[in-house]
Amino acid sequence: MAKQRGKLIVISGPSGAGKSTVVSKALEGRSDVCFSVSVTTRKPRPNEVDGKAYFFVDLDRFREMVENDELLEHAEYVANSYGTPRAYVEKKLDEGMNVLLDIEVQGARQVHEKMPDAVMIFIIPPSMEILEQRLRGRGTDSERKIEARLIRAKQEYAEADFYDYIIINDDADKAAAEFSAIITAENCKYELRKNILSEV
Amino acid sequence: MAKQRGKLIVISGPSGAGKSTVVSKALEGRSDVCFSVSVTTRKPRPNEVDGKAYFFVDLDRFREMVENDELLEHAEYVANSYGTPRAYVEKKLDEGMNVLLDIEVQGARQVHEKMPDAVMIFIIPPSMEILEQRLRGRGTDSERKIEARLIRAKQEYAEADFYDYIIINDDADKAAAEFSAIITAENCKYELRKNILSEV
Repeated sequence: MAKQRGKLIVISGPSGAGKSTVVSKALEGRSDVCFSVSVTTRKPRPNEVDGKAYFFVDLDRFREMVENDELLEHAEYVANSYGTPRAYVEKKLDEGMNVLLDIEVQGARQVHEKMPDAVMIFIIPPSMEILEQRLRGRGTDSERKIEARLIRAKQEYAEADFYDYIIINDDADKAAAEFSAIITAENCKYELRKNILSEV
Repeated sequence: MAKQRGKLIVISGPSGAGKSTVVSKALEGRSDVCFSVSVTTRKPRPNEVDGKAYFFVDLDRFREMVENDELLEHAEYVANSYGTPRAYVEKKLDEGMNVLLDIEVQGARQVHEKMPDAVMIFIIPPSMEILEQRLRGRGTDSERKIEARLIRAKQEYAEADFYDYIIINDDADKAAAEFSAIITAENCKYELRKNILSEV
């Protein structure tokens, strides 16, 4: 039996939803999931190796990648640009890995359009009140920043109609179990395995 | 937050796929899944209670249920008829339970047509050779019966194009984990939870 192709898993959620905790809990002991590696025009820091945390490119090469549709999504900021290289993702999927992409709703929508079989997961807190409490509890953001984050969260909710799954993070262990279950279930999809039905 | 509606989970697979072992392993410790209760025209045995293993009805009432579209699927045999009562399933789903239906491919297709959001799962052995070994290993079937079962399995494979998921049972624990993951994942579907996004 040939190695089954992996799935691209896109995860988004407002700042304060607890996304990174949920993801790291879910990936404990799973060797079938890896993170995608982004390209960036940012300069590498002294100990950063190309292809580990990022692929480092200059702005000309970055724009060429955009031009040639080599990126599944990208965002250009004033200082630096970031994107997800299609070739790297495809290579990992072909190796049978599930590739995880942690990006904002706008980038996620680009990926959804370019790879319709990507699995789109949206993680949210149980309520806006709890999100506000969590943001305040961190003690890292100014009042103004917290308000901006809450407005941003509501905008994202309104734009999130293209996601396949919603995880409500009221308990990190439960949310992690749901996240992990989604990856497992998506690997059982008929389309991925139907060839075995005709090989008999 | 109102109780989330459950999902109807339909499971099929050839005799010898190990379906019942996989299902019972998967349901260990899950209180959010129950089996559907079929109606039958078969006479109750002395210790059988109506509504437990079966709802017992006479043939007139059974045919009325078919006529009134009260059954999600049904099959009439020479001796007895069996069917899945829609009202019972709907009641359980509304209570937030996931309802499990273990039926053959033909019945599953009827359910799929009547309830398009039912989750369709097909369990198969790793290969026809292994299926044959398992059937022989049981020691319960005649050679003729084994051959008939293998032909039946191949027919079912060819008709199984409407399933959502395929579980390959080469290891019962892994297959059970996949089955359980599918139920969990399906309860995270956007359509079931999207109301929370607009409640903020």
